[in-house]
Amino acid sequence: MTRIESRENPRVKRVAKLLVSSAARREEGLFVCEGPTMLREAAAAGAGIAEVYALPGQEELLGGVDAPCFTVTEPVLRKLSDTEAPRGPVFTCRIPRQELPKGGQLIAVEDLRDPGNLGTVFRTAEALGSPEVVRVGSCADLYAPKTVRSTMGSIFRVKTCVMTPHELWQWTRERGVALIGAALSAGAQSIEKTDLRRACVLIGSEAHGLRPETLALCDTHAVIPIEGAESLNAAVAAAIFLWEMKRSRG
Amino acid sequence: MTRIESRENPRVKRVAKLLVSSAARREEGLFVCEGPTMLREAAAAGAGIAEVYALPGQEELLGGVDAPCFTVTEPVLRKLSDTEAPRGPVFTCRIPRQELPKGGQLIAVEDLRDPGNLGTVFRTAEALGSPEVVRVGSCADLYAPKTVRSTMGSIFRVKTCVMTPHELWQWTRERGVALIGAALSAGAQSIEKTDLRRACVLIGSEAHGLRPETLALCDTHAVIPIEGAESLNAAVAAAIFLWEMKRSRG
Repeated sequence: MTRIESRENPRVKRVAKLLVSSAARREEGLFVCEGPTMLREAAAAGAGIAEVYALPGQEELLGGVDAPCFTVTEPVLRKLSDTEAPRGPVFTCRIPRQELPKGGQLIAVEDLRDPGNLGTVFRTAEALGSPEVVRVGSCADLYAPKTVRSTMGSIFRVKTCVMTPHELWQWTRERGVALIGAALSAGAQSIEKTDLRRACVLIGSEAHGLRPETLALCDTHAVIPIEGAESLNAAVAAAIFLWEMKRSRG
Repeated sequence: MTRIESRENPRVKRVAKLLVSSAARREEGLFVCEGPTMLREAAAAGAGIAEVYALPGQEELLGGVDAPCFTVTEPVLRKLSDTEAPRGPVFTCRIPRQELPKGGQLIAVEDLRDPGNLGTVFRTAEALGSPEVVRVGSCADLYAPKTVRSTMGSIFRVKTCVMTPHELWQWTRERGVALIGAALSAGAQSIEKTDLRRACVLIGSEAHGLRPETLALCDTHAVIPIEGAESLNAAVAAAIFLWEMKRSRG
């Protein structure tokens, strides 16, 4: 394995840029991941691992990896990572092409700005058996390090694409799927009375919920009945809809 | 209102210390909150607001507040806040005395290390109608700014206390409440087959779940059946248990 000792090495500078710049990620079609679990899951999922940067002694973690591997020093690793105590390996992965959803039960998110929330939606969608997520509007960058980390590896397995609200509506028409807007107001129908068997549930932003014009496109609005607190965290709301979707499958 | 212009003002330095030091918070019995919504909710809940620091022009936000108020400059406000773009008002609040839970349905968390997760559990517990949370083991500091923020105001209304696993077990014996450990393994009984009508559900740490000796104290272990992903986010798991508790109340 080639050894990299300089923080000024062009490869290192390129990965460091991918960490912080979503424009660079888009341009290169690459994102950065970190840690033995992520690397194992990426390899197992057949994700497009491009390059791996490991500390000396981490060779055994690189078993199933079919990509150029480099050994780096601790200071170089710190430059390759955005975590406080990086442990490596760091690796770059090709951003997969977008895929239109195929299933009849899924979550779409609009303007979900918090990377942790977006990543958690991916993780929960996979765990609860609806591994497709549509992103609408101005969501957090799915390929930013914090989002990637919050998916806990689900990013390598969940299918995703970006759509406009109208494209999503059109897709639900073609597939015979109900478009259900998660509402914040108690005026909407309760989630428990909503048929989720063929449904795309749209979850809105942390601050404002769904945009009015998006709500207007929906077939139904459904609300998780709450008390006291003003609203649920967006990833929590998505989880409860995903759980009820799973229950509807029996 | 007294005006504070110096970042070296002793009051300012004291609040800045409360922001970063959990020892200082314990010693003074105070924690720091920020924003118009938090201030309104604290006042409405009768939380013990100690002092308020507002920008000039924010006087109208101080209506229901019965505590000394100070006007501060932008640089002073930045020192009083841990957010990137503080907008004020910042205020200190007395840490309430601990209260043993009174209800028959509640969440307990063990070793929940992430401030965002802990705060989200408080927010969700209130919203789904079980506004009591027991903290066990080494949880994130409930009164750290990031945790407080994640509760979105629920910190002023949810009753909470710290218990050892044995104290919690003892409490469930006295109250005729089942102690249910949230398990990660598919071997445990499914949440859907678990009676949650009088139950304290214990959620474990993000990394390891419940400690073995805590699991051993539980009457039952219940699992949220998942696929693909290795586990759920701890706040998401708590939310699904809280949702099922709510459903069990009919």
